[in-house]
Amino acid sequence: MEAAIAEEVGARLAQDGAILICGGLGGVMKAACRGARTNGGFTVGILPGNDRHSANEWVSLAIAAGTGQARNLAVARSADVVIAVGGAYGTLSEIAFALDSGTPVVGIDSWSISRHGADKSPIVEAASAHEAVDIAMKLVAERSTTR
Amino acid sequence: MEAAIAEEVGARLAQDGAILICGGLGGVMKAACRGARTNGGFTVGILPGNDRHSANEWVSLAIAAGTGQARNLAVARSADVVIAVGGAYGTLSEIAFALDSGTPVVGIDSWSISRHGADKSPIVEAASAHEAVDIAMKLVAERSTTR
Amino acid sequence: MEAAIAEEVGARLAQDGAILICGGLGGVMKAACRGARTNGGFTVGILPGNDRHSANEWVSLAIAAGTGQARNLAVARSADVVIAVGGAYGTLSEIAFALDSGTPVVGIDSWSISRHGADKSPIVEAASAHEAVDIAMKLVAERSTTR
Amino acid sequence: MEAAIAEEVGARLAQDGAILICGGLGGVMKAACRGARTNGGFTVGILPGNDRHSANEWVSLAIAAGTGQARNLAVARSADVVIAVGGAYGTLSEIAFALDSGTPVVGIDSWSISRHGADKSPIVEAASAHEAVDIAMKLVAERSTTR
Repeated sequence: MEAAIAEEVGARLAQDGAILICGGLGGVMKAACRGARTNGGFTVGILPGNDRHSANEWVSLAIAAGTGQARNLAVARSADVVIAVGGAYGTLSEIAFALDSGTPVVGIDSWSISRHGADKSPIVEAASAHEAVDIAMKLVAERSTTR
Repeated sequence: MEAAIAEEVGARLAQDGAILICGGLGGVMKAACRGARTNGGFTVGILPGNDRHSANEWVSLAIAAGTGQARNLAVARSADVVIAVGGAYGTLSEIAFALDSGTPVVGIDSWSISRHGADKSPIVEAASAHEAVDIAMKLVAERSTTR
Repeated sequence: MEAAIAEEVGARLAQDGAILICGGLGGVMKAACRGARTNGGFTVGILPGNDRHSANEWVSLAIAAGTGQARNLAVARSADVVIAVGGAYGTLSEIAFALDSGTPVVGIDSWSISRHGADKSPIVEAASAHEAVDIAMKLVAERSTTR
Repeated sequence: MEAAIAEEVGARLAQDGAILICGGLGGVMKAACRGARTNGGFTVGILPGNDRHSANEWVSLAIAAGTGQARNLAVARSADVVIAVGGAYGTLSEIAFALDSGTPVVGIDSWSISRHGADKSPIVEAASAHEAVDIAMKLVAERSTTR
């Protein structure tokens, strides 16, 4: 289910001409890369280990960060916008690093977070891959005009 | 307010014979270190930068990780239990990394988080420094007997 | 001088269809990127900081590693072969990380290193940009056939 | 042989009241820690992985950096002086990071390095553990008076 959503996110990003950056491994990451590549997109996989050949086969460019989960920082900081699909704690760390640098985060069936005393999550929730990519592309466009 | 809570957390950890590991800088980190040191404790500051001398004056041992916010990974992974006091996105990344490796997290006025489809936060909430340290020490004791 | 060599290295790599990966900042890194881009190449800049916009203008794809000098590990581990042009201690760390994972290193006016008891440097020395790229491409070709 | 030297380095550092910081694993690191601990010293092991329990048994305080070989940066940047005993490429990266931040390096049967055009190695060579620790302690004393 998550994989199907991720694949559609990848496909739509590619159709919009965006580069997809992810952690480069399997599961949701692989599904998103497949969606992008089969739609003519370019994908970057920033791997935790030292071996570039551990990237999934849909990664166009593999970066072997060699820094374990600290590569999540690179994934989050290298993007204009983060789209979180489902996700476990690694995804939560990427959400934290993205928001820390002011990068907007769009979530599909992902984490809800709220700081003590704040009543809403800083994550923009989307109901579908289609909606998530639309929101993401609008957020990027807005940010580039106001910069 | 957060500083006062953090100082008491540090003090109580020192009284219980625990080592305090934190990010080594100012604010909540400095307050916690001060509480620990003035109660005979030992404090470790894992700094983001390359200069050990940027640690606050209550740090017993300064580690200059040199890896920016990726040092949050070291803070989270080096502890038996994480106590989050308030906190911004850096704290959220530490919470994510701690939970990812199965390290329990106790929060005081900190983040509420929930994964899609789950109805409760994996963070154990405490109402005071006193309660947070009590819970934390119990969690550590339980884990060492079941290991 | 080093900049002229680096620019030619970048140019020849692009002519040979190779992707150039570097630290993404100024000096030798910028010169190499300029050489590659003005010859139709693709360049990746793995930056130490959190801001992708700190990359030099000849970087095609900027990765903000956010891990300071630890990004040298990513530069070294992501390449099939490392060409060191001149270089200070950061370059020496990249040479160490490359050799550690068995990636060959070609040097032009760069470091000489030898382990105690060994009488020769594991760095292949080249006298020019032309020669360095020729050696590098041959080393990559050999490695892919023997793998 | 290297282990015996490392153990004596650890022993003498402890006798001089210095804290020993190392990579926390086996081999030379373990020998140095054993020398220090059996002489009343305090040892810090900065581990590449996420599990503190992978530290050798002579480590007083284990930091799980979780960043692979990037932890070499933390080892090098957290010290007043680096003593390299033998060593492979990981050691060479630590030497590079130490020299990069102006931290002196003393070597025993370790690397010889020279930058193109320079005729001498920036590593101070010592013939024995005894001599290495004497030189190291003098270098630290000089630096603290001139700061």
